[in-house]
Amino acid sequence: MGLCTMKSKKDKTGIGIIGLGERGLGTLPLLLAMDDIEVAAVCDLYEDRVAKGVQLAIDAGKAAPACFSDYNQVISLDCVDCIIITTSWTSHPEILMAALNAGKPAATEVGGASSLNECWDLVRNCERTGTPCMMLENCCYGREEMALLQMVRQGVFGELIHCRCAYEHDLREQVARGVENRHYRFHNYQHRNGDVYPTHGLGPLAKLLDINRGNRFVSISSMATKSRGIHLWAREHLGSDHHSSVIDFAMGDVVTSMIKCARGETILLTHDTSLPRPYSRGGRVQGTKGIWIEDNASIYIEGKSPLDAWEPFSRYMEKYEHPLWQKSSIQEYCAGHGGMDYLVLRAFIENVRDKSILPIDVYDMASWMAVTPLSEQSIALGSMPVPFPDFTDGKWINRKEEAPSKYGLNKTL
Amino acid sequence: MGLCTMKSKKDKTGIGIIGLGERGLGTLPLLLAMDDIEVAAVCDLYEDRVAKGVQLAIDAGKAAPACFSDYNQVISLDCVDCIIITTSWTSHPEILMAALNAGKPAATEVGGASSLNECWDLVRNCERTGTPCMMLENCCYGREEMALLQMVRQGVFGELIHCRCAYEHDLREQVARGVENRHYRFHNYQHRNGDVYPTHGLGPLAKLLDINRGNRFVSISSMATKSRGIHLWAREHLGSDHHSSVIDFAMGDVVTSMIKCARGETILLTHDTSLPRPYSRGGRVQGTKGIWIEDNASIYIEGKSPLDAWEPFSRYMEKYEHPLWQKSSIQEYCAGHGGMDYLVLRAFIENVRDKSILPIDVYDMASWMAVTPLSEQSIALGSMPVPFPDFTDGKWINRKEEAPSKYGLNKTL
Repeated sequence: MGLCTMKSKKDKTGIGIIGLGERGLGTLPLLLAMDDIEVAAVCDLYEDRVAKGVQLAIDAGKAAPACFSDYNQVISLDCVDCIIITTSWTSHPEILMAALNAGKPAATEVGGASSLNECWDLVRNCERTGTPCMMLENCCYGREEMALLQMVRQGVFGELIHCRCAYEHDLREQVARGVENRHYRFHNYQHRNGDVYPTHGLGPLAKLLDINRGNRFVSISSMATKSRGIHLWAREHLGSDHHSSVIDFAMGDVVTSMIKCARGETILLTHDTSLPRPYSRGGRVQGTKGIWIEDNASIYIEGKSPLDAWEPFSRYMEKYEHPLWQKSSIQEYCAGHGGMDYLVLRAFIENVRDKSILPIDVYDMASWMAVTPLSEQSIALGSMPVPFPDFTDGKWINRKEEAPSKYGLNKTL
Repeated sequence: MGLCTMKSKKDKTGIGIIGLGERGLGTLPLLLAMDDIEVAAVCDLYEDRVAKGVQLAIDAGKAAPACFSDYNQVISLDCVDCIIITTSWTSHPEILMAALNAGKPAATEVGGASSLNECWDLVRNCERTGTPCMMLENCCYGREEMALLQMVRQGVFGELIHCRCAYEHDLREQVARGVENRHYRFHNYQHRNGDVYPTHGLGPLAKLLDINRGNRFVSISSMATKSRGIHLWAREHLGSDHHSSVIDFAMGDVVTSMIKCARGETILLTHDTSLPRPYSRGGRVQGTKGIWIEDNASIYIEGKSPLDAWEPFSRYMEKYEHPLWQKSSIQEYCAGHGGMDYLVLRAFIENVRDKSILPIDVYDMASWMAVTPLSEQSIALGSMPVPFPDFTDGKWINRKEEAPSKYGLNKTL
C-alpha cells in the first residue's frame, strides 16, 4: 500500500484518482481500459472502497495501484502526472487547489461550490500556479449537446435569445438512504436550499452562449418550493422512525433560477430531484430563427420546418453530428453514459499531455459552480437577484472562442 | 342606430357587447347562436367594425342590435341586462367599472392590468356595488385544463409542488402590423416590458392551486430577454423603412416570471410571442405523486405509470373528463376555440341570470391581471421580487372552495 508500482512511466500518463464512491468506481474502468495511461494511485477515506478500486485494476489485468486515504500523498507521488477528483461535491475545490499548488494538472467531477470565495480561490490558484484544471462536465460531450453546439455555431437558431436546462432526476432514495450509503447528498439536502447540482444543464448552455468568451452570467434570481418529497418517500419505504422521515430538509423540492447574461439572453435553470418523475435535463435552445425542446425531442426552424409544427430532432442530429461523435468507435460510446464520460476524460488527458488549452477551464468552472451559493443566497433573500462575480476580471470581453484542441468542443484538432 | 330593438325582453337576457375587433367579432356569432339571449347593442370606436357586427346579426337571422361608439350609452340601455367587454386590454377595467357602477353585471375578455391601483379599484367597485363581474378566461374551460382540475381535486398528483404555464404564440406579424391593423398589441410592445398576457396559463393554474381560496400569490420575480424578434420580422416582411423596423420595442422577446404561493408552491410563467415557434401554453403540473407536461403530451404518476417512463396523457383525459365536457354536444365544442369559448360565456350568462356565484370572480381577476404591472416592476428593478397585494384583505385564508354552480369549474349543478 502506498508505493508507486508504475514500471513504464515514460510511455504512459500516471493518473491518481481521488474518491472511490459510486462515481469514482464508475470512472475507474474507463481509465483502466485506456492504453496510454496508468492508474498509478487510488485514494478514499473508506478502506472497502479502496479495495474495490484495486480489485477493478486487477480484474482489468493492470498493475494494482498504490492505495491511500490521504489525498496529499497521492498528489505528491512522482509517478502521478495528473489527478482526477471524484469525491463529494464540497471537497472538490480543496483537493483541486492542493493539486494545482503541487503543479499537478487536475480534473474534478461536477458539483456546485459551497461559497463564492472558494470559486475565487480556485481561479487565483490556477492563475498563480499556471497549472491547468478542468471540470469533467460529461454533458458538454453529450451527443445532443454537441450537435446543438454545431447548430448554434452554424447559425441554425439565429441569434440566441433564451435557453433552459435542468437536472430533473428522481433521487429520493439516494437522498433518504444517504447516511447509511455514505452519500453526501443527504447532508446537503438537510442543510442547504439552492441549486446544488447546476452544471449538467448549465455547462453545455454556457458553451452555446459563449460564457466567459464574449458573454457572461450577470445575475441570478432563484426560488424554491416547499420540501415534501424526501420525507414522504422515507416514511413509505424506511418507516416513520427513520431519520430521513423525521429531520427537516432545507432543500425545496423544485428550485428554479433565472440567469441574465451580459448580451441580453436569459437562462432558466431547474433543480428537481425530490419528486417522482422520468429523468430529463429539460433543455431548450431558442433563437431568432427557431427553437429546440428536449422534452418533446423536437425542433422548429422557421422556413425549414412545416409551418407552426414541430419536427423530430433526430433528423437534425444526423446532419449536425459533432466530428467527435462521427469518428469515435461504437465501443467507446457505449463505455459509460453513452460515451460522453469517455470523451470528457480523453479531453483532459490528451490536452494536458499536449499542454493544450483545456476545453472547460477554471473560469468556466468557477462561474458554473458559483450558481450554487448564489442560488442559496437569492432564496435566502426571498428571490432577490444577486450578482455573479466576474471571475475573469473583465477578460471575458476580449477572450476569443475556445482554440481548437484534441477533443475540443468547438473545433477538434 | 342607438335605439333598443328588443321585443321579448322578459324571456331573454339582453347583452351589450363592447368592442368589435377580432375578438368581439369572433364572440358575436357564439352569442347570436344562443336562444336565451339577445344581442341588444353593439359598440366600437370604429364604424366599420360596428357595421360588421350588425351584419353578423342579420346573417344569423336576428334583429339588428342598437349601435354605439360610446360604451356608456350601451351600459345605460334598459334592454341591456349585462355587458360583455371585448375591447383592448388597457380599456377593460374602466369599462368594467362603469358597468358595475350602473348595476350591470359585466364580463371582460382576458388581458393584464396597467396598474395595481386599477386592480384595487376594480375590487372596491365590485364590493361596493355588489354587482358581479367575471373574466372570460376561456382556457379555464379548456378540455385538458378541466380534466387536470378534476385530477388535482381527486388527489392524482398528490400535494401540488410546482406548476408552469406560458403564452407561447408567434405573434410577430400581429405586433409588427399593429398600427395599420388597429391592434393595441403594438403600442404595448413598444412601451412595456413585462408579461402583458398572463391569464391563459395562469388562470387555470390559479384554480388548481386554490388561489384566493386557501392560498394566494405572494411574490413574483420576472426577467426579460433582449428584444429582437419583431424588428427582424418587420425588416424581412415590411421593409427596413416601416415603423416596426425602426422603432425601439421595450418588450423582451421572452419574459419569465417565478411566482411564490402562500402554501409554498411555485409557478413558472412565460410570455414568448416574438419568436418563431409552434403554439404552446407550456403547461406543467407537478405534485408529490406525479407530473404532467403539455409539451410532450405526457404524464407520469408513481405506481401507475411504467417506472420512470412517460405515458400519453390522452388515457387520463378520458378517465378524468370534466362533466361539462361529457355532457355538452359536439356542435357546441366546435363552435369556437374547441368549445371553451362557449362554456365560459354560458358560465357568465347562466350564473348572472340565476344570481349564482361566478366561477371566476373579481379577486381572481385582480390577482391574475396584477401579474402584468408586477412583472413590469420586477423587470424594471432588475428582477427584484415584488409583493402581490392581497386583494381579498385576508379573506383568502377562510374563503371556501368555489360553490357548485351552472358551468362551475369545480362542481357543476
